[in-house]
Amino acid sequence: MNYPNGKKFITAAIKENKRKITVDNFGNRGMGLEGDINLSNNFYNETKRALIYKRPTPIKVLKMDKVDKSKITEGFFSSKSTTDYNGVYKGRYLDFEAKETISRTSFPIANIRTQQITHLKSVIEQKGIAFFIIRMKAYNETYLLDAKHIITFCENAERKSIPYIFIKDNGCLIKESFSPRIMYLDAVDKVFFN
Amino acid sequence: MNYPNGKKFITAAIKENKRKITVDNFGNRGMGLEGDINLSNNFYNETKRALIYKRPTPIKVLKMDKVDKSKITEGFFSSKSTTDYNGVYKGRYLDFEAKETISRTSFPIANIRTQQITHLKSVIEQKGIAFFIIRMKAYNETYLLDAKHIITFCENAERKSIPYIFIKDNGCLIKESFSPRIMYLDAVDKVFFN
Repeated sequence: MNYPNGKKFITAAIKENKRKITVDNFGNRGMGLEGDINLSNNFYNETKRALIYKRPTPIKVLKMDKVDKSKITEGFFSSKSTTDYNGVYKGRYLDFEAKETISRTSFPIANIRTQQITHLKSVIEQKGIAFFIIRMKAYNETYLLDAKHIITFCENAERKSIPYIFIKDNGCLIKESFSPRIMYLDAVDKVFFN
Repeated sequence: MNYPNGKKFITAAIKENKRKITVDNFGNRGMGLEGDINLSNNFYNETKRALIYKRPTPIKVLKMDKVDKSKITEGFFSSKSTTDYNGVYKGRYLDFEAKETISRTSFPIANIRTQQITHLKSVIEQKGIAFFIIRMKAYNETYLLDAKHIITFCENAERKSIPYIFIKDNGCLIKESFSPRIMYLDAVDKVFFN
């Protein structure tokens, strides 16, 4: 769902994540990784550093109102066959998925859908920039990982989760600030433009 | 709405556009420009020449089912603040809007929303590839125009429509084939990669 209005987002986030908030209200103010990325994208878009959007969640429309042709009376959220975010940075195509985990030891692969791996492989084939943003909530750390590392891990994995040490070794720690909340384009610079 | 299945698309298109089909069934088989682009994108994606998607139409959800949390009971289609298509080609970010007109003399500017102009200007600022695909149905011709031309025209226009001759002079005629239906990436090559 889109919350173009920040306040509404916060209200919704608070309603949905009441329990979570008690855990992580210090680090990310209860907005979660998605909220942080949306705010950071607004900042990047406004300051013209990049143009990055969250893809809307596709909705399968089953019934429309018979009189008001723009009104949906029955529909369902369906899962994306792609990732959450894409856009343009320095002329390059950029595409990524964001995930968080409360685990202290690893990131469960089950959190990533096969379709997302397929999609990010296609992005890499087209020479786009593909990555994951993974937040380890237990450590209040957010990492950017080149999608190649995650794809290789998922395709060769005997384990069902990516160890924290793998994320630490292969990822780039994303710095936080007031605005942008998470400075992930600095990590993109380090990983993809060096 | 997406019609991943070509046959379904045709059926839906026929139902929705019965009148139109009698006019243009020779040139584009009644599928319209959007159908042609979607089929061409499928072809480009499958043959790994590019990765281009249609953005889903955003839906404003007003009411959810109280029991089934994935079910929407009231929602509205809202208009996009961006364009219809984006993706990656040769590593570059690509973003475009497609429009068709039955006029023989010009393309009415009213067909383009101010938000779309703003969005495409931002894409150009980020060194992305931004363009319009405009179909002149009266001539059965489809042109690719660098968004810069359209933006300049809209911002300086005293006229309320873009003359056919302007489109012909500044645009690149897109060739048609069986697959892809419209070979618009060849026009992208000519206009942006020369």
